[in-house]
Amino acid sequence: MSLPATYTVEGLSGARFRVTYRLVGNEAEAREKAADLALEQTVEFPGDLLPAGNIPTAIVGQIEALEPADVGHSTAVISYAVETAGDELTQLLNVIFGNSSIKPGIRVERLDLPGALLAQFRGPRFGQRGLREVLNVHDRPLLSTALKPMGLSAAALAELAYAFALGGIDIIKDDHGMANQPFSPFEERVTLCAEAVARANRETGLSCIYMPHVSAPAHLLLERARFARSAGAGGLLVCPGLTGMDGMRLLADDDSIALPIMAHPALQGSFVTAPDNGIAHYALYGQLMRLAGADASVYPNYGGRFSFSREECASIVAGCTVSMGEIKPIFPTPGGGMNLERIRDMRTLYGQDVIYLIGGGLHRAGPDLVENARQFNHLVSMRASA
Amino acid sequence: MSLPATYTVEGLSGARFRVTYRLVGNEAEAREKAADLALEQTVEFPGDLLPAGNIPTAIVGQIEALEPADVGHSTAVISYAVETAGDELTQLLNVIFGNSSIKPGIRVERLDLPGALLAQFRGPRFGQRGLREVLNVHDRPLLSTALKPMGLSAAALAELAYAFALGGIDIIKDDHGMANQPFSPFEERVTLCAEAVARANRETGLSCIYMPHVSAPAHLLLERARFARSAGAGGLLVCPGLTGMDGMRLLADDDSIALPIMAHPALQGSFVTAPDNGIAHYALYGQLMRLAGADASVYPNYGGRFSFSREECASIVAGCTVSMGEIKPIFPTPGGGMNLERIRDMRTLYGQDVIYLIGGGLHRAGPDLVENARQFNHLVSMRASA
Repeated sequence: MSLPATYTVEGLSGARFRVTYRLVGNEAEAREKAADLALEQTVEFPGDLLPAGNIPTAIVGQIEALEPADVGHSTAVISYAVETAGDELTQLLNVIFGNSSIKPGIRVERLDLPGALLAQFRGPRFGQRGLREVLNVHDRPLLSTALKPMGLSAAALAELAYAFALGGIDIIKDDHGMANQPFSPFEERVTLCAEAVARANRETGLSCIYMPHVSAPAHLLLERARFARSAGAGGLLVCPGLTGMDGMRLLADDDSIALPIMAHPALQGSFVTAPDNGIAHYALYGQLMRLAGADASVYPNYGGRFSFSREECASIVAGCTVSMGEIKPIFPTPGGGMNLERIRDMRTLYGQDVIYLIGGGLHRAGPDLVENARQFNHLVSMRASA
Repeated sequence: MSLPATYTVEGLSGARFRVTYRLVGNEAEAREKAADLALEQTVEFPGDLLPAGNIPTAIVGQIEALEPADVGHSTAVISYAVETAGDELTQLLNVIFGNSSIKPGIRVERLDLPGALLAQFRGPRFGQRGLREVLNVHDRPLLSTALKPMGLSAAALAELAYAFALGGIDIIKDDHGMANQPFSPFEERVTLCAEAVARANRETGLSCIYMPHVSAPAHLLLERARFARSAGAGGLLVCPGLTGMDGMRLLADDDSIALPIMAHPALQGSFVTAPDNGIAHYALYGQLMRLAGADASVYPNYGGRFSFSREECASIVAGCTVSMGEIKPIFPTPGGGMNLERIRDMRTLYGQDVIYLIGGGLHRAGPDLVENARQFNHLVSMRASA
């Protein structure tokens, strides 16, 4: 018994998606790497042993372009049959970078997905426009902060939420380290914080929303999100690095939840920290988060306590907003060691369509959190109208 | 309204887990990095603004040890209250490396988890001993191969499965690129391949198992695994990089499935490719895969078409077998460009308790796949008894 000598895969549509990879190596080395990638991401089989027929030409990735990039690097565009991804986000990610993530010197730079593939995904339910409608804020950047530090009780966190909502923050999220710990159980926290924000909204007339962190064990993910909705949460914070990218997609697609989603990058940093490996900021925090249903994508801002450059942050904005068929543009959400002094400079990069996320830094301005939030709102509103 | 000036977290048990990080930097730089890590992974809050009380001493990570490592690196051991992980794998991963994954120059080396935390996790259902019982092989390394190339129909793949089972392979898995594509739909493939292996077992008297690849969108994960069981599959192939680590844990814990699980490293490579970032082989392919329920952990062998060193592979063996309370030891499963000529050398590193995974290389030896599988079995059995 042996492999067929010739084999024809039936029913391929001819539609293909393209992935741009940055490869370490000169053109000759890159050509070898690209040829290897094209096999590795599909048939994972020695090219010379493949059956004759259309597997080598249609199932194996095809090198569409190969050119020198900056010193020591080349860029390769490889196309794959849409059918290899089988209409599923998990398998799409697998084809894009599954095995090749394990080989050094390969970085996913950009995705070009045809309509036939994009049509399989709903993407963000709200996007920029929808989230602005929910918050009823149309003329300035959005403001967000996080409930912390870990260790506080649900009641203590709810007091913070009340103060921030009173001060004019638009989105109050759990810190991403809040899960279902004994010192602040999930259901109690969500109930109290949602109530506190609703109470503040009645006083201010504003439409602040509370976004609890719902990353959870796989069997509890939908349950937590549904509880959050029933308790009055106005959105969800999700770490796709913890739930899997498709866990976030599940929450975005579920019509019984139907809440805006903010994606947090926890545990996904290893994709970006080494510049020659992984997935570029543009593709990861922009294109993939959108495809997986995020309405806002959190990432560390340049100049904070992380190491992203201004250019990398600009590329995230581009990935969050580049045309992707019916997949809506979403909000870049820079955070991570931000403070009020940074707003001015950030404004020149981010313009209006951004969510400013200031967490611990909002405590730095003084002990009165309502006043700090007001100052944050004032700074952003003033600049927006200037 | 302001943060409480003093705050006491009630009910902490005092039990702590430890994470060993390798940090880029000399001792002074590493001390600063470790202090930052201890805050980042827990309260994510400026240390000087924390309430007095036990948050700084019990919730914030505590530096238990800090010492120079190889040139340019230091090693820090940080302990965290067991309660910060909230009894959930998702949150445990979040505390271990959530935000710090985004900061360059930090690598998770090793976990030391106390009984109070390990008791929250079932880990592998079978482990080395249980999987040997399923396969009825006790005196030699186990043999595995993959059904490929992508593009073949379910019927064509089933013929390969039959040939390999007839030739004496123990575990026949789907290639990890097999999902639910139109050219080989999941249910048809699983049904035909499970039948083919059962037919071969009736002829050989052996106990070969078929492990279909069940990584799937989050809402279909359990469904696919249950279908696989009902169709006669003897195990499951899962890519936790696609499903989330907890997706695999869910499959391992589900009593209605109760099948051995082989973990595949697709999309997790970025954790290991840059030596100063990410998660070390020992912790990722060993400790974490076990904790998340894998009975076998696939990784690229040294000297294949990937870049792992012999030492890294040895560390994976250690992570798969080191004492972890009631969490069973599992099989290291080296693959990735292996072939029959490598068995001799691999034997000296891996000994008996290993699964040899030879995929495309099993086609290299000649067109008769039954004969190739027999040769593979013979080589391994001969060496084992030598």
